[in-house]
Amino acid sequence: MPAQEIENEAACNCKEGMFPQRRRFLFGAGTAAATAAATAAALAGTLAPARATPDVPADPTRVPGRATGQDGGYGARSPFETARRILGPVPNSETTWTFTPLADQIGNLTASGLHYERHHAGIPSIDPQRHTLMVHGLVKEAKRFSMADIKRLPRVSKRHFIECSGNSGGAYQNLPLKTVQVSHGLLSTSEWTGVPFAVLAREVGIAKNAAWVLAEGADAAVMTRSIPMEKMMRDAILAYGQNGEAIRPEQGYPLRLVLPGFEGNTHIKWLRRLQVSEKPFMTREETSKYTDLMADGIARQFVFTMEAKSVITFPSGEMKLPGPGFYEISGLAWSGRGRVRAVQVSLDGGATWHEAGLNEAPQPMCTVRFTLPWRWDGTPVRLQSRCIDETGYVQPTHAELVRARGVNFYYHYNAIYPWTIAADGSVTHEAA
Amino acid sequence: MPAQEIENEAACNCKEGMFPQRRRFLFGAGTAAATAAATAAALAGTLAPARATPDVPADPTRVPGRATGQDGGYGARSPFETARRILGPVPNSETTWTFTPLADQIGNLTASGLHYERHHAGIPSIDPQRHTLMVHGLVKEAKRFSMADIKRLPRVSKRHFIECSGNSGGAYQNLPLKTVQVSHGLLSTSEWTGVPFAVLAREVGIAKNAAWVLAEGADAAVMTRSIPMEKMMRDAILAYGQNGEAIRPEQGYPLRLVLPGFEGNTHIKWLRRLQVSEKPFMTREETSKYTDLMADGIARQFVFTMEAKSVITFPSGEMKLPGPGFYEISGLAWSGRGRVRAVQVSLDGGATWHEAGLNEAPQPMCTVRFTLPWRWDGTPVRLQSRCIDETGYVQPTHAELVRARGVNFYYHYNAIYPWTIAADGSVTHEAA
Repeated sequence: MPAQEIENEAACNCKEGMFPQRRRFLFGAGTAAATAAATAAALAGTLAPARATPDVPADPTRVPGRATGQDGGYGARSPFETARRILGPVPNSETTWTFTPLADQIGNLTASGLHYERHHAGIPSIDPQRHTLMVHGLVKEAKRFSMADIKRLPRVSKRHFIECSGNSGGAYQNLPLKTVQVSHGLLSTSEWTGVPFAVLAREVGIAKNAAWVLAEGADAAVMTRSIPMEKMMRDAILAYGQNGEAIRPEQGYPLRLVLPGFEGNTHIKWLRRLQVSEKPFMTREETSKYTDLMADGIARQFVFTMEAKSVITFPSGEMKLPGPGFYEISGLAWSGRGRVRAVQVSLDGGATWHEAGLNEAPQPMCTVRFTLPWRWDGTPVRLQSRCIDETGYVQPTHAELVRARGVNFYYHYNAIYPWTIAADGSVTHEAA
Repeated sequence: MPAQEIENEAACNCKEGMFPQRRRFLFGAGTAAATAAATAAALAGTLAPARATPDVPADPTRVPGRATGQDGGYGARSPFETARRILGPVPNSETTWTFTPLADQIGNLTASGLHYERHHAGIPSIDPQRHTLMVHGLVKEAKRFSMADIKRLPRVSKRHFIECSGNSGGAYQNLPLKTVQVSHGLLSTSEWTGVPFAVLAREVGIAKNAAWVLAEGADAAVMTRSIPMEKMMRDAILAYGQNGEAIRPEQGYPLRLVLPGFEGNTHIKWLRRLQVSEKPFMTREETSKYTDLMADGIARQFVFTMEAKSVITFPSGEMKLPGPGFYEISGLAWSGRGRVRAVQVSLDGGATWHEAGLNEAPQPMCTVRFTLPWRWDGTPVRLQSRCIDETGYVQPTHAELVRARGVNFYYHYNAIYPWTIAADGSVTHEAA
């Protein structure tokens, strides 16, 4: 068939009923063309913030596109894309956090520019040629490594989530966490690349009585945490890469400790020092901060592991479904104890549970995207998901979690987080 | 141990010989502290382009860091990071390509800002609320889908490479492709998210005699390719997501056809139309362009699949190793026919081969990073890698490839690409 016979859009026969027998379409007959504009407008109003419309040609095939190379050899997202991290409550702008826009996250990875942040004293500016990592204490030979030294060592690349221990923390007291960005956005997933601590350990030689490692950051908070040596040797990564390029400044450039499955604050950013010892160091961050106050007034210390958790990101809080019809429920599930084994979704307030599909084979200590096809009939419904990890642990309900921990707790909230869809399509979280 | 007893860097005892028995260190005794600065300077001079040094404090712990939220909620890389795509030969700046800086790529994924480009008429500006995908031809019901419609359909997320069929093409004629960016940089890997064509096919209903699909872009080139229906139904993705966010403008925003393992030009960007037919359409891009001229003067047409290939990215062309010692050889391997089964590295010009380590379980039609620990003794050496995929295919030598195809060929070059290290540490490619 010669090229000139290719039909163009204008010549296309778009009328329905071209064939007498209809199959059952996901949108139902006649929906697509008729309601496309309405759907787009409705979803745009609920899923994306207001924006100024960039100038675009009416028909992009009639004008040459933007020339290549105008971006300095490093691209940017479309001006139509406006998803952004939002600030948490701000004691001051150096000591705050930002939430990843999980409702806008597509797939399993978090775009590096949208990775959640938690800073104790702002984001330091560090010259990688001057940055060093000191390893000392109970070692055979204390050493200082330049970034060039570290990059010469054997490396690994692993996809892992990092979750702040305070993620969803307000839910203990039923605070209004209205969107999934605010309720669960202290969670992000990246491909991390770096040197296993176990490799570095061979370089310095670890003493037999060593049991803990102090990790220290080069920020103005001089953030410090004590980490069990067993964890460091098992899977800790001194990471300098994130999603294919150097780790971002907000995430610890040029070097970050990645501790798969451990609470976020232990993944020390701007890592400059590792001190090996027999005992933990009892720093501020593991005594007055980042401990878990139980109902009996006793605080749990060194609760490192983020337990199994999941959340539905579509539909989620403050969205508005444009009407009954087909949707794909979608969300993220993860566990600090290993792989996600299964995710279940309930459409009836927890009476029955449906097995969700997982978008890929789950990786250890990594999020996985789950999906469930769903036809909404327009009546009010309560959606919730629960994660089951490879240890057999089942994500608890809010009532179960509070029964076990009380409400003095702030960290490590991992209960099921339901969304309610009203008859008008509006989505809210109602405290359990 | 109280917090105030934590040793700081200045107080650390860094002298060697703290313990009488030494283990064998990768860098050798005493190397790290003494040569860190020299190594950093040497590697910086060879691995990174010249740059102006951004202002940084002498000690980042002494001044508050940058406040959070100054980036508009979307982060950027460190000003010290300067890896960039570079332009290919430029007929004009709308019809050109850019190479991914593979030597700087860390891990397996390509940072979205550094994904290689190939544009036939520049990068169109497209409003996603006005963009539609028309599906018509041999279908039961022609339909036009808005982006909102497409995003309501069931989706998948898969990591796949995309490689331009012209990648390494100059190597047929032994043109000087001196760096791995120029020799292999028309290759990038992303997590792609979107709707399988098989799902869309159910929406429109495919006629029984349908065998091909024309895919058309909304750029000023109105780029078109004919794709076998079998491939479309097997694993084609109508992708709107790349590495966790919307696909980048250079990569087809808001919608791109992803055809795992097929040559890059068939992954139609800015996808606006799919026309189902019995026969291929014989467009310009599959007749005068993107065909393979054999030695006998006959051109092969519809050679879609990118065969198994690999390249060492470290060390690679125009780098200079600072001296003998430990290095980790590292590179990327991939195959358009499925999973990489193994990668082998030769240090002696191909006489013997060593099994390289793979950084993760290989995914189908996805790059995988391979590594091999290596101690360089300072004598000249020839490094090369070869990929073996799950079909048993072994990446050929240059001589084998040219024997099979002649040198009229330009596309689909996938031979072994050796690097030679001279006694002074300089790395070059010598044509085989």
